[in-house]
Amino acid sequence: MTLNISIPPVDAEAARAARQRIDNLTKPLGSLGRIEELAERLASMAGAIPSHAYERRTIVVAAGDHGITEERVSAYPADVTPQMVGAFLGEFAAINAFARVARADVFVANFGVAHDLPDHPRLFNRPVARGTRNFAREAAMSEEELFAALRAGIAVVDELIARAPVDVFAFGDMGIGNTTSAAAVICALIGAAPEDIVGRGTGVDDEALRRKIVAVRTGVSRCIPGDWKQNACEVGGFEIAGLTGMILAAASHRIPVVLDGFIVTAAALLAQRIDPAAIDYCIASHRSRELGHTVALRELGLRPLLELDLRLGEASGAALALPLIEAAARMISEMKTFAEAGVATGEPTVTV
Amino acid sequence: MTLNISIPPVDAEAARAARQRIDNLTKPLGSLGRIEELAERLASMAGAIPSHAYERRTIVVAAGDHGITEERVSAYPADVTPQMVGAFLGEFAAINAFARVARADVFVANFGVAHDLPDHPRLFNRPVARGTRNFAREAAMSEEELFAALRAGIAVVDELIARAPVDVFAFGDMGIGNTTSAAAVICALIGAAPEDIVGRGTGVDDEALRRKIVAVRTGVSRCIPGDWKQNACEVGGFEIAGLTGMILAAASHRIPVVLDGFIVTAAALLAQRIDPAAIDYCIASHRSRELGHTVALRELGLRPLLELDLRLGEASGAALALPLIEAAARMISEMKTFAEAGVATGEPTVTV
Repeated sequence: MTLNISIPPVDAEAARAARQRIDNLTKPLGSLGRIEELAERLASMAGAIPSHAYERRTIVVAAGDHGITEERVSAYPADVTPQMVGAFLGEFAAINAFARVARADVFVANFGVAHDLPDHPRLFNRPVARGTRNFAREAAMSEEELFAALRAGIAVVDELIARAPVDVFAFGDMGIGNTTSAAAVICALIGAAPEDIVGRGTGVDDEALRRKIVAVRTGVSRCIPGDWKQNACEVGGFEIAGLTGMILAAASHRIPVVLDGFIVTAAALLAQRIDPAAIDYCIASHRSRELGHTVALRELGLRPLLELDLRLGEASGAALALPLIEAAARMISEMKTFAEAGVATGEPTVTV
Repeated sequence: MTLNISIPPVDAEAARAARQRIDNLTKPLGSLGRIEELAERLASMAGAIPSHAYERRTIVVAAGDHGITEERVSAYPADVTPQMVGAFLGEFAAINAFARVARADVFVANFGVAHDLPDHPRLFNRPVARGTRNFAREAAMSEEELFAALRAGIAVVDELIARAPVDVFAFGDMGIGNTTSAAAVICALIGAAPEDIVGRGTGVDDEALRRKIVAVRTGVSRCIPGDWKQNACEVGGFEIAGLTGMILAAASHRIPVVLDGFIVTAAALLAQRIDPAAIDYCIASHRSRELGHTVALRELGLRPLLELDLRLGEASGAALALPLIEAAARMISEMKTFAEAGVATGEPTVTV
């Protein structure tokens, strides 16, 4: 099976033009640090110097359940997944509060929650199955299911864009047990040891942490190095594969994707294995306290914007980074250059 | 001379109540990291759990000129100070772009620019003098001038609050040569070596950096340890003293102050020497690339929210942190608790 998706390369010429403009804005050279880098990257993605504030911001939280919760790897019961989807749609969860800060719309995509979810105008109800199978005992999903989830993710993004233009996406996750699946995906894809990747997720105790490591080791032991399809089937999750599809689709439309934390980064790693060009459209929002997140970010070559000790998911970190995207876009599109502003630069008047 | 200002202590009971509510919101315990700490601090400042989004945001950029520029310590000519004030009021500088992101108002306070500035509805035109004297040769200002600048800062904040309520202030600086003055203030107040505090400011070369260090060492050599008044007179700046007054005044009204970078942190250090309670109302926005900033933040016991390699000033970093203040306020005021939301918590259903 293959995915019919094509990601255009980013535009190095537009990035150079952006850098030239940034270096002439009314501020000391390089004085806006990472905001300048961000503006350059936005230009490379858009193929032109941004001329607007990236105000059409769309957050999608991908939800799914995990058979691996049978191994008691989470501090929360699996029932919490649909309850939290209800909280997102009821607009009283963390992501809703943070989306108001970023003036972003929040959608939920159900790629495989174990319960039926009632329809809602902000819910894409596309479950591949009622949760994955327990990967400590068998493959989490079949190849058909993997591709169904990837294609469902692509369809969600394509449908959102067809409804209304989107300037920037922020993607997040919800799924009890999904830090275990994400850790296994990362271990399988980069060949890391479970001890270096598995963390406490929502805050499990030492006993549950040991169970998580054992579960990941068991699942990963069946994974064939270099075979992303097989790896994702063995230990993946429906929301993780859905997120991978969403990332690929956003990149195919040249739309920047703000990645949330550990789970979304695992999905981005899978996207990279499918098409490395996808990562050129990805912006890492924050460094999570989850152990393997830094390892996965390094593998992607991404440096996160924020370090706020977050470990919630839901796109909460991605939402907090959206104002920085806006700041970068406004910097390059709204500030004047020294010449435009008639402000003296350092060179002509200082003789050292 | 003394300042007639009184700062109420922060409310530890309100902080505890906030922590209790945060621990019951629909998210894993502690999973929003530093945003949770911020919400606790906002409660301690307000004396109650925040019930709104801190939407009335006011940015003030304090401007002043420095006689020390005669020592050729900056990459920019001193004329740039009034030109940049023009850019702020013309709304095409970095701070204007970032203020739009934060939906904040921008005001400028002239505490001692070397040129006359035309009146403008967003300019507080309160110059103490036309720039400080060259502190490499003599005291930067008299004690009368120091207190005039401190009182001018207090007056600006009092007048802003009298015009319209303010939920949060963000303070920044503009003044060619002011990283040299700020470095000297920090060295004098904490007894640090100039080599450990002086940085490249707007980006000076090695020669100018050496001149900066020599200038700071010369000025600081006249400073009497433990005498903040004398220290500020010897090596301070009018915008730095104005900022100190603004910080003290905001704290006296229990209004949170988001500090920008190196210059504003030096002003906060001076405020701490005047009344340590002021710092309980201060939030450090970012860690600047300027050398001594980290040392000064440590002395204040503040950990910055952002690390974006900024070194611009103008309140640019403070503006970028305002959405995090809003996020903390919205988290605690808009999220439901597990009980309110009817979502299962970990404890009753997981048996380990």
